[in-house]
Amino acid sequence: MAQPARAENAHPSILLREQVGDVAVLTLNRSAARNSLSDGLIAELHAALNDIANDKDVRAVVIAANGPAFSAGHDLKELTARRTDADRGRAYFGELMNACSAMMQAVVRLPKPVVAAVQGIATAAGCQLVASCDLAVASEHARFATPGVDIGLFCSTPMVALSRNVPRKQAMEMLLTGEPISAERAREIGLVNRVVPAGTERDAAIALAQQVARKSAHTIKIGKEAFYRQAEMDLADAYRFAAEVMTENMMARDAEEGIGAFIEKRVPVWEDR
Amino acid sequence: MAQPARAENAHPSILLREQVGDVAVLTLNRSAARNSLSDGLIAELHAALNDIANDKDVRAVVIAANGPAFSAGHDLKELTARRTDADRGRAYFGELMNACSAMMQAVVRLPKPVVAAVQGIATAAGCQLVASCDLAVASEHARFATPGVDIGLFCSTPMVALSRNVPRKQAMEMLLTGEPISAERAREIGLVNRVVPAGTERDAAIALAQQVARKSAHTIKIGKEAFYRQAEMDLADAYRFAAEVMTENMMARDAEEGIGAFIEKRVPVWEDR
Amino acid sequence: MAQPARAENAHPSILLREQVGDVAVLTLNRSAARNSLSDGLIAELHAALNDIANDKDVRAVVIAANGPAFSAGHDLKELTARRTDADRGRAYFGELMNACSAMMQAVVRLPKPVVAAVQGIATAAGCQLVASCDLAVASEHARFATPGVDIGLFCSTPMVALSRNVPRKQAMEMLLTGEPISAERAREIGLVNRVVPAGTERDAAIALAQQVARKSAHTIKIGKEAFYRQAEMDLADAYRFAAEVMTENMMARDAEEGIGAFIEKRVPVWEDR
Repeated sequence: MAQPARAENAHPSILLREQVGDVAVLTLNRSAARNSLSDGLIAELHAALNDIANDKDVRAVVIAANGPAFSAGHDLKELTARRTDADRGRAYFGELMNACSAMMQAVVRLPKPVVAAVQGIATAAGCQLVASCDLAVASEHARFATPGVDIGLFCSTPMVALSRNVPRKQAMEMLLTGEPISAERAREIGLVNRVVPAGTERDAAIALAQQVARKSAHTIKIGKEAFYRQAEMDLADAYRFAAEVMTENMMARDAEEGIGAFIEKRVPVWEDR
Repeated sequence: MAQPARAENAHPSILLREQVGDVAVLTLNRSAARNSLSDGLIAELHAALNDIANDKDVRAVVIAANGPAFSAGHDLKELTARRTDADRGRAYFGELMNACSAMMQAVVRLPKPVVAAVQGIATAAGCQLVASCDLAVASEHARFATPGVDIGLFCSTPMVALSRNVPRKQAMEMLLTGEPISAERAREIGLVNRVVPAGTERDAAIALAQQVARKSAHTIKIGKEAFYRQAEMDLADAYRFAAEVMTENMMARDAEEGIGAFIEKRVPVWEDR
Repeated sequence: MAQPARAENAHPSILLREQVGDVAVLTLNRSAARNSLSDGLIAELHAALNDIANDKDVRAVVIAANGPAFSAGHDLKELTARRTDADRGRAYFGELMNACSAMMQAVVRLPKPVVAAVQGIATAAGCQLVASCDLAVASEHARFATPGVDIGLFCSTPMVALSRNVPRKQAMEMLLTGEPISAERAREIGLVNRVVPAGTERDAAIALAQQVARKSAHTIKIGKEAFYRQAEMDLADAYRFAAEVMTENMMARDAEEGIGAFIEKRVPVWEDR
């Protein structure tokens, strides 16, 4: 079913995109490089997210990966190669960090739910990608780590996402020790929603995404955006904002249809189906 | 023991209030409508909270419910009836959302502890009411959901309270899927404090409220208010504020009495008993 | 191995300091007073942290305690003695609260990781000290409480640290009831990282500190500081800040060495060893 994004390319694409029902499945496909987030892969992910934002056929997204690792984070060989730049790589690193941060925030700002399907180890920016998704399903064999500290490069951008998912001391333990945690531990501390038998995580993530995709796309868009915005407000401002959002939501066609269907005990028919 | 708030009313009150020792128990009593938060019930709850704020005989509050559901959230029939307004209900919805948000914030601002006793399903604004209480006790049969997404109306105001109780991905799962979670799962993710055998949740909540009611009312008032205020500050400001609060607290009569009683190994006698 | 900080003093020091490998172990040594945080002990802790900040031989810190209690919080007899001041103690209490808050923030701002080793009960400011550490290891027999409410003095400064470790309702339950929680419960709600057999908590905390001490000290300093700063920013600002931090980190000698060592499959040699 795979529909390579660049069929014209002789090389296999580093990011595969396929459509399963209403769900776009993006698959990291640099397994020989442990799906490390090269600047090429970051750019392809960001471009795919931008494309999906405007694609009415896509109502939810799954981010999965081929090979034994989910993602090993940044590509250290790529980084090291730029040490020979005149500025020892500073400009390049800065651009790479900004590009990666922008892609992670594009996941958060995408008006459609994004579910990670984690089959193997997710480290550094790979762990950040999981943390940046709205939901995450993990294989029982998945593991999570922020091991930058072991190579003298603290996982500072990953911790932005990690520390917004996980309690403070548990995030600190991962960041200071670099030690991996199990899928089950990740579930306990809030980094993933569900742990499933190995080999079923992709289907489980697609099923979860499909479940959300059956809701009103307009409603999901309103709600996801409001969730992350109100999270940064104090209580009074959050309520003022959310009350406005909900009033606007009430006036939309899908709320009228949905409430009507509920009262009449029938299945609602959403806009844009 | 029930003391209906409106004994003069021929209809049974939609909100019952009784006094158990130092605890006011407010019982949602619209069980035929699954205790949905009609504008009438929101107004009665808010009025009861305002009255309790100034009632020296009340040192703690329990919010409980009659019937199989704790609360089903807003009253959809009431909402739908206003679709025939000239503005299709916009003004009404806005006022309702503001009134509901104000009532929820009145729970948070009440200078006395509020404990939810959840015997059945708490959905949407019903789940928000539980999240807004300082503490919550749930029957093993209670369930919690934010299912607005299923009717095209995202639970945007409920998520303000929910997301301040529960880790991000777990809140998102409830909001995006609309699926209920069990009482035990609610305890795991932080939405309730305790799960008790079915039928004992009301007594357990009253016992917990009584335990707090035996403390100094002045001290609880200071502490509850400071808790929610410092939660919205950065660390340095929070410490500056809390150090001032604690110094004022030390100068109060009940701290002098409490510390003296502790040193002298006797039971303290609080003000206003 | 103990190296008393004031060997010239006839009295045993109230704070012991010893060096175990790269780790400074600070031991609260007022066990007859349940290691309560007298103004003297607060001052000694703060002075030791300041000294350690500039001591290149120290790469991590453990805060432990002698006797059955970890720390009982403030010294109530010391507080009460100042009731006879002309201002009934107000100026003294204010200074004490500020001094204590400053010491707690010195733990957070120290550019080296701090691990609590909790062997017994940690209450009030004692619980706050555990919450203020980056990591915490607890004996299975340790317990945690914020019981100020029982003596009319709400644990307002402790709650600043507690509520930044623990979900809202669970923090509120501790603060409003004053009841102790077990080490295992503390682990569940995020207040400690690990629970170990009684008597092994000190060695376990030192081992954990040593594990972090083997990393690059420069990297740990960058990362710890960035962690607490980004935690107070919104998502976009946090990413802007963290991307800058990570770019600076990349340009540092230890990142170059660490990444090189990783690629060459050798053990890195950090600066300042």
